[in-house]
Amino acid sequence: MSTDSDSDATDELARDRLIDLAGEFYDQFAAGNVPAMEIPTRTKSNIVFDEDKDVWVYGDRTSTRSANNVRGAQKLLKAIYTIDFLAEQLDQDRSSTLRELYYLSESWDEERAQFSDQDESNQLVEDLEIVSEVTREDFHMRPEESGATIMGPLYLREQTRRGEREIHCQEDVGEGGYQIPNNPDTIEFLDHDADFVLCVETGGMRDRLVENGFDEKYSVIVVHLKGQPARATRRITRRLNDELGLPVVVFCDGDPWSYRIYASVAYGSIKSAHLSEYLATPTAKYIGIQPEDIVAYDLPTDPLSDSDINALESELDDPRFQDDYWAEQIELQLEIGKKAEQQALASRGLDFVTDTYLPERLTEMGVI
Amino acid sequence: MSTDSDSDATDELARDRLIDLAGEFYDQFAAGNVPAMEIPTRTKSNIVFDEDKDVWVYGDRTSTRSANNVRGAQKLLKAIYTIDFLAEQLDQDRSSTLRELYYLSESWDEERAQFSDQDESNQLVEDLEIVSEVTREDFHMRPEESGATIMGPLYLREQTRRGEREIHCQEDVGEGGYQIPNNPDTIEFLDHDADFVLCVETGGMRDRLVENGFDEKYSVIVVHLKGQPARATRRITRRLNDELGLPVVVFCDGDPWSYRIYASVAYGSIKSAHLSEYLATPTAKYIGIQPEDIVAYDLPTDPLSDSDINALESELDDPRFQDDYWAEQIELQLEIGKKAEQQALASRGLDFVTDTYLPERLTEMGVI
Repeated sequence: MSTDSDSDATDELARDRLIDLAGEFYDQFAAGNVPAMEIPTRTKSNIVFDEDKDVWVYGDRTSTRSANNVRGAQKLLKAIYTIDFLAEQLDQDRSSTLRELYYLSESWDEERAQFSDQDESNQLVEDLEIVSEVTREDFHMRPEESGATIMGPLYLREQTRRGEREIHCQEDVGEGGYQIPNNPDTIEFLDHDADFVLCVETGGMRDRLVENGFDEKYSVIVVHLKGQPARATRRITRRLNDELGLPVVVFCDGDPWSYRIYASVAYGSIKSAHLSEYLATPTAKYIGIQPEDIVAYDLPTDPLSDSDINALESELDDPRFQDDYWAEQIELQLEIGKKAEQQALASRGLDFVTDTYLPERLTEMGVI
Repeated sequence: MSTDSDSDATDELARDRLIDLAGEFYDQFAAGNVPAMEIPTRTKSNIVFDEDKDVWVYGDRTSTRSANNVRGAQKLLKAIYTIDFLAEQLDQDRSSTLRELYYLSESWDEERAQFSDQDESNQLVEDLEIVSEVTREDFHMRPEESGATIMGPLYLREQTRRGEREIHCQEDVGEGGYQIPNNPDTIEFLDHDADFVLCVETGGMRDRLVENGFDEKYSVIVVHLKGQPARATRRITRRLNDELGLPVVVFCDGDPWSYRIYASVAYGSIKSAHLSEYLATPTAKYIGIQPEDIVAYDLPTDPLSDSDINALESELDDPRFQDDYWAEQIELQLEIGKKAEQQALASRGLDFVTDTYLPERLTEMGVI
């Protein structure tokens, strides 16, 4: 949302949806029914591929939060108080973190509406996201985790509370790059000279690419994922793909945890499948480290631990990894019993990754 | 180091020191002695307060790395290879991460010089720092951890590989702020309008201060520590204090782990006491959350865990915490058996921290 009036409209829509939700409880009461809220079951077995939207979404199974018992009634009471808080926050153009919401509930006059722990308030905000179809960011709830950074030939305008900032993500930033704000929908892309987007898991590798001028030489926007990427990082990646039509490739360590990082960029996470359309980049491709690279480039490795093996086996069952490519790679990795970090490419010299590995892989993948 | 010639001079000095070190081994051999390297013992019991420099440094106890056994000889061999690599890296104006160094050693022709794990290469680089009195940053070794961000009335020039960037840390950055580069000595402070520096532990609180315009209203440079601060974050804090004469206050959660975060800013860490003069800000004051705040402001708390209690007791023995203030606070906390997060202040409303808590504490401390 790039202009004040756009952002006002978003705020108003979010506020309306929340009020509607409270209105539904009211109507249920008025009709003499026990108020309840129906929510999709959020487990691996209840995600399905949406062919139209090209993303994984929740399936048909639902859970009900009903006021037909004391615990359920308290949950709905908490929902009402939270809706009231969020609506006021939107009215005043303020924002807050999930943790602040938890603490803030201690100031509510009705003690039974106060949260007993932060898991409870986090879960409730997610429930409200799902039911209202408004994202947490549009409720003005900020994450604790901060987004990561961008370096590349991209010129953007960020709408801040202090006015607009126009920033070129190579020319107007230091070596640390452009810090992605908590809500990247405050960004408008003004211009770019990029051919593709490269998401990188580790800071060490991100710095290597920047030092070697990879973003300049290959006209690539380097997005640092910083491990499991924050929502802001996934959102801006999706927008770079969607709005600028740029292919996205993901560069991680060669182990099952990193495949999950890739999956969260490409397919969305199971926990937030209601946001897949907003956060996931279904066409994102995995560049490496692939198990076959470990063999092909004879990389230094560590043996797979028991938990690595379990995670790989669980990925073989994961609907998001059900294709020939992943089946082959994961089975190869289980066979060789090894994993490798992306920085292991340094065993072939500090420039191997930018002079050889990435250009070879990008050519194979048809990106360059 | 702000200009090219400055940075060339730093590189040359670092290179000379490394070559001298290798020269010493050579001289020891030539004189018919077994080569050895003497290093301060790096434990809590061997740090002492240096009255002149006003920081904690290593005491007189030393450990010796000697070639009088196979293991020791291999250590020195690794040191020689590493010195050779670092000298070449400085020559070519390249840089690398600690992890890359570890992997890179696999390409060395002499197998016995290769590192067997990353702890070994990390430790060796620290040994070289201590003995050569050159910091890792001046060897061009980058950390894996990235620095955090700055928001405030500070105008600076960063010398990047792509030329100079002049950035105002409010006007030229988005809401995410200015990303501190890995080596903040590439920054020159051009101008500022700040009265003090506020280091903040959590991202949620950092965002709260920025949203509430605290940096503007109180002319403060807000430095996000992001938990245990990276060396880059501690270094720039030290420089803001040293070069601009700005008082530094540290704002953390009210628990023993956060007191250690404060200690690493103010006193330096035990592991890197050889760098205290470069990284520590001895005049930095702890603003809170103090155990007495938990009582005074009736904050929501969690009970102390066993490991919290152990950590508090260990702090009572830590030479860096030997003063009346800390003894009183830590004993109070053990007595009440509670801890509180900085965001717990939200239980008094979202503006309580910026309208009441911080102004009250800053006045008490004589900062404003």
